[in-house]
Amino acid sequence: MTESTSKGKFITFEGIDGCGKTTQAEKLLELLEKKELSISFIREPGGDPISESIRKLLLHAEESMSDRAEALLMVASRAQLTDKVILPHLLNGRWVIGDRYADSTLAYQGGGRGLSAAALENMNNFGTYTLKPDLTFFIDISVEEANERMSVSRDRIEREGTEFQQRVRDFYLNLQQKEPERVILIDGHKSIDDIHEQIWSVVSERLL
Amino acid sequence: MTESTSKGKFITFEGIDGCGKTTQAEKLLELLEKKELSISFIREPGGDPISESIRKLLLHAEESMSDRAEALLMVASRAQLTDKVILPHLLNGRWVIGDRYADSTLAYQGGGRGLSAAALENMNNFGTYTLKPDLTFFIDISVEEANERMSVSRDRIEREGTEFQQRVRDFYLNLQQKEPERVILIDGHKSIDDIHEQIWSVVSERLL
Repeated sequence: MTESTSKGKFITFEGIDGCGKTTQAEKLLELLEKKELSISFIREPGGDPISESIRKLLLHAEESMSDRAEALLMVASRAQLTDKVILPHLLNGRWVIGDRYADSTLAYQGGGRGLSAAALENMNNFGTYTLKPDLTFFIDISVEEANERMSVSRDRIEREGTEFQQRVRDFYLNLQQKEPERVILIDGHKSIDDIHEQIWSVVSERLL
Repeated sequence: MTESTSKGKFITFEGIDGCGKTTQAEKLLELLEKKELSISFIREPGGDPISESIRKLLLHAEESMSDRAEALLMVASRAQLTDKVILPHLLNGRWVIGDRYADSTLAYQGGGRGLSAAALENMNNFGTYTLKPDLTFFIDISVEEANERMSVSRDRIEREGTEFQQRVRDFYLNLQQKEPERVILIDGHKSIDDIHEQIWSVVSERLL
């Protein structure tokens, strides 16, 4: 089952923590619901009971976690979510908005932690059942700005520090240059309303 | 870090559920301990706190699990165990005996469930940090014999049925023919003591 068989549209939001993607994903969801589209919101990792159990393990494990186990757990959570939630929704004509998807594994475990991009891409192809988003909004802010915005309470991955976040951001910038049709660069320093308007204009032009 | 850097020996036991591999792994462990070898026993999936959490999810999840999520969780548990337990032990000169390892993913998720062998091999290479056992004992019994021996209470994977178990067994038989140096075929219908004696003769000849 691949993207070519899907009827609904799949839109994802990507960027470093604190970039504002969750806010924007929720605003887009609200607006699409007003247009009476059938639409679901999913959050990565998580979004299904088994995926949520994996999420807890990933974000709150007290013990030291192998970097490769982390990557595999991320993709396992995604496989469950894709098979049980995203693909059935798309096949039924529902739209799906994702707060993170496969690009996050490449950015965090590849760009951030330096794991093999080829190995991660193979795993992503397997774990996504080769599904690709129709559109991905990469909301880009500087690491300094992200750190100012971030909450005091941080999870295990958010505590990684500035250089790690910079590598993740750089990965997203490169990805956007490689796949400019799918990945739309959004300047996350603008106001919430300005960003929302820009996202809406791309969605209405490309998908409606 | 690969096998060439390890000092201890790594021996694994494989076969369908009910074949007697756990009994044989424990008997080999006892005998090697009597020889005053420093040795650890590991069980897959599991063997470390994070791996044990993954084990619980794999064997007892009430919800329906995606076949690909299952495979990825298996390999995630293995990556954690390999990085945090097996490789450090081997590098310190400890021997490690494993009740299942990477071959189980190929046999159960590939042979049993029909997932892509190439994708699973890529994931296994990633999740094992390219570690391979020095010796693997494949204890072979018929599916009928296995079913007679199995306990009444079965976990989620053990409930898969006869045809599934037959495909798993066939995978192991093929693997043994492809890698006869590493994978030793043991007739699991023989007595516990006969099998132990055969295993011991191979270990003493090849590794001591």
